[in-house]
Amino acid sequence: MKVPIPALTFDFAGIELNRRQGLSRQLYQTLRERILDGRLSGGTRLPASRDLALSLGISRNSVMRAYDQLYAEGFTESRVGDGTYVALLREKSPAAKKLSTHLSTGLSPGLSTKPLIMAAESSNNVIHSTAMHTLDQHHLRPPKSGLPRAFRTGVPAFDLFPFDTWGKLHAAFWRKPGLQHLGYGDPAGEWRLRELIAAYLRTSRDLRCAPEQIVITNGAQQAITLCAQLLLEQGDVVAIENPGYRAAGHAFGVAGARLQGMAVDDEGMRSPALGDSGCKLAYVTPSHQYPLGVTMSLARRLELLAWAERNQSWIVEDDYDGEYRYSGAPLAPLAALDRSGRVLYVGTFGKVAFPALRLGYLVLPRNLVEPFSRRRAVDMRHSEVGTQMVMAEFIAAGHFQRHIRRMRRAALSRRDALLAGWPQELAGCSPMIKPVAGLHVTVAVDTLERETELVAKAENVGVEVAPLSEYWLPGSETPVDDRAGLVLGFAAVPEADIASALGRLRSAWRV
Amino acid sequence: MKVPIPALTFDFAGIELNRRQGLSRQLYQTLRERILDGRLSGGTRLPASRDLALSLGISRNSVMRAYDQLYAEGFTESRVGDGTYVALLREKSPAAKKLSTHLSTGLSPGLSTKPLIMAAESSNNVIHSTAMHTLDQHHLRPPKSGLPRAFRTGVPAFDLFPFDTWGKLHAAFWRKPGLQHLGYGDPAGEWRLRELIAAYLRTSRDLRCAPEQIVITNGAQQAITLCAQLLLEQGDVVAIENPGYRAAGHAFGVAGARLQGMAVDDEGMRSPALGDSGCKLAYVTPSHQYPLGVTMSLARRLELLAWAERNQSWIVEDDYDGEYRYSGAPLAPLAALDRSGRVLYVGTFGKVAFPALRLGYLVLPRNLVEPFSRRRAVDMRHSEVGTQMVMAEFIAAGHFQRHIRRMRRAALSRRDALLAGWPQELAGCSPMIKPVAGLHVTVAVDTLERETELVAKAENVGVEVAPLSEYWLPGSETPVDDRAGLVLGFAAVPEADIASALGRLRSAWRV
Repeated sequence: MKVPIPALTFDFAGIELNRRQGLSRQLYQTLRERILDGRLSGGTRLPASRDLALSLGISRNSVMRAYDQLYAEGFTESRVGDGTYVALLREKSPAAKKLSTHLSTGLSPGLSTKPLIMAAESSNNVIHSTAMHTLDQHHLRPPKSGLPRAFRTGVPAFDLFPFDTWGKLHAAFWRKPGLQHLGYGDPAGEWRLRELIAAYLRTSRDLRCAPEQIVITNGAQQAITLCAQLLLEQGDVVAIENPGYRAAGHAFGVAGARLQGMAVDDEGMRSPALGDSGCKLAYVTPSHQYPLGVTMSLARRLELLAWAERNQSWIVEDDYDGEYRYSGAPLAPLAALDRSGRVLYVGTFGKVAFPALRLGYLVLPRNLVEPFSRRRAVDMRHSEVGTQMVMAEFIAAGHFQRHIRRMRRAALSRRDALLAGWPQELAGCSPMIKPVAGLHVTVAVDTLERETELVAKAENVGVEVAPLSEYWLPGSETPVDDRAGLVLGFAAVPEADIASALGRLRSAWRV
Repeated sequence: MKVPIPALTFDFAGIELNRRQGLSRQLYQTLRERILDGRLSGGTRLPASRDLALSLGISRNSVMRAYDQLYAEGFTESRVGDGTYVALLREKSPAAKKLSTHLSTGLSPGLSTKPLIMAAESSNNVIHSTAMHTLDQHHLRPPKSGLPRAFRTGVPAFDLFPFDTWGKLHAAFWRKPGLQHLGYGDPAGEWRLRELIAAYLRTSRDLRCAPEQIVITNGAQQAITLCAQLLLEQGDVVAIENPGYRAAGHAFGVAGARLQGMAVDDEGMRSPALGDSGCKLAYVTPSHQYPLGVTMSLARRLELLAWAERNQSWIVEDDYDGEYRYSGAPLAPLAALDRSGRVLYVGTFGKVAFPALRLGYLVLPRNLVEPFSRRRAVDMRHSEVGTQMVMAEFIAAGHFQRHIRRMRRAALSRRDALLAGWPQELAGCSPMIKPVAGLHVTVAVDTLERETELVAKAENVGVEVAPLSEYWLPGSETPVDDRAGLVLGFAAVPEADIASALGRLRSAWRV
């Protein structure tokens, strides 16, 4: 039974965007609405991003972001081969239908209270609004220095990485690489690196695991993708923090999962049990919630673990910036508290070394190691050997621990530079609270309109400030004004650049 | 039924050659283009080389080289005593058929008379343990030298890789890496590497593509996986060579596709059109079929392209060992003949450098670049930057081309060592025919029982000989004995080790 695909053309009529608000968000919403109510039928070809941008008089980047979001959520399909088409949602499975209904009616029933005025101490953290958004940005305006602009999120002080040492370790490895490393390797990764990671996690996180439980990945993103691919079936529900790390949501979405946004309060993500949701998996950032910066309370951790054990569900614990804690002791990771083999721990070197390293790892319950390795072998066999071996030597020789300390000091100093120069009196914004962990800080803003205005004016003077509203799942029921805020990464650039960016912000914002 | 051959004359008009570039190459390209677009119809007599040289004002030698290449690729045919004619490609005349038979020089007659001409068959298949087995094998007995054992397949002479140069390039890159390379990069890969690959493909494969069309991957396996994930829906049918490369089948199987095994004869894989299969995608190794070694005839190439165009299907062309051709000119890749944007070309550096490098690429029709990059970003963002930049420098500085020549010579010499010492009188086996391309050779065996016996006895003396029967899809209808054979990789170990392994084989096999 074949569904005929009508050759429909895209009708621009009636698309009106308010220039004073987030353009990509509005465009995304408009298109989504039209898809859901049938004005844009399945099979309609969307115009090329460049053309639509031209027609609407907005930047191509805004169009791309809207398209990315629609794609990630399954409203469109790019695989057809000659562009992007509206997905055949209605003709598809009941699951797809449910997905669209679900997405249109809103998630996160619990997010009625303003989420940002909650953590007494912190409000803050890392990574980017949508993955694609951030990826695109890198090609827009590469700063001459090669560093990202202030205040890009998700980027550590990689200007401080000891590249000379790194290069010497590379030279040393390749001088006598050992031919046994150069054929097809273990899909789970080089054994020596897995041993060293296990030892590192034991001392730094109190997480006891065997090297056999570690699978090396191409960064945290591939770790999350593997979890999505191996643990989920089409239509499974995934509990995800809302607001949260959108790139993780994309990975689960691509695997066919439905996302259930879970409210985040001052104890971290609320337990999926509260929603009686039938979730198969929960994705969490307990040590430093992204982007709000909350640390998940122990009570909540135990509740989450009990839920997973009871329902035989999975927990993916993303400890993306676990190396950055400036005061207080970290809580034990979920993986260290897990007694029933339900937690998959995600770690990365990208936030300590540099993102382009693309080196991360999973710590898995023992029974998952073989299926994960096998799937990785089918997907891409394994990671390049030199990077793995050099990182192993970097850790073994003590460079890694030294560098972590250096990075922590630098992030702390850059955080303080941001706090010192931040206009605390900024109208319509809550004060910036000193973050105790991580690489970013979040400030609540009273209204979406004010958020949009502040972000746009910052952009005008070449300063990146991420709108918190974009970290929310589409269709969230929380009133738009309650989603507003600013997310600032403070680690990416040196103190002088921070001061200079703050000067420009002050003048752009007239404070 | 005889196809009347019109007496067409050759039209010199419009042939313009740029004297500052390779003349024979330009002439070859011009003629090939005219043959493909019909301006030079089948049956047209080409002018004598001397005459054409005179008319164009170039050396006769240049014309001869162009003619040789056209002939080698099946674009022309010679009639004894009557000159050279444009082949009747589309009509599939007996002459063209005969021609293409003639072309499949890589195939051993022992194979062609035997099991390879078989009925097209279908079989459902997802992951089968043998592929894992193949991957696992690499961990079984690491030889002390670090080299794989003779005669492992799929492994080049990586003991000859200039690791010292590679290490120095790493050291040079990391000494001053350029901070702009160290944040999140382009999911399609580093621009400089993409440019250099495009230039390399132009000169080495006559494949014209823009750097924008190239997406860097984590080896060929990830390239195939991306094709599977982006071009296929659950339940789509994929035509795949049978016997063929099982790891590709696994990637398609994991994406939910059903595999349709296609017979391979002495012209290469039979066209999916023959099976009336409704295939969405065909995966082929036209330059050197894996594992049988056949080169796909030009007629079959055009037939496959016409099928893809007609059905809006995709062709994934895996040119896994395209650098290894020992005599004759290579045929134009499908991607170079493709006029409707249906071919995705897969290339890899693993077979020229070393497998653990995990660096490959896709050449994509332009409209697929964005969805592929986007998906790769969600899956794992991008590949590690240092490896990409060092490979770019390796190519730019000329090391790559020099190394290819070195590797080709080494493979040739190792091939000859295998042929020289092979027991041609081995009972129950067809003789080993000299392969003209690639890194392995296949010998037909009369029965599965004999295959099993030979493989086991080889294993007992520490020699790897892969059973051809394991390259077949499960559930193949071809009688088991017709699937039997031995597959030997000849490039992985030096000549002395080859001789030693052959000595052990002779004694184990009592020949």
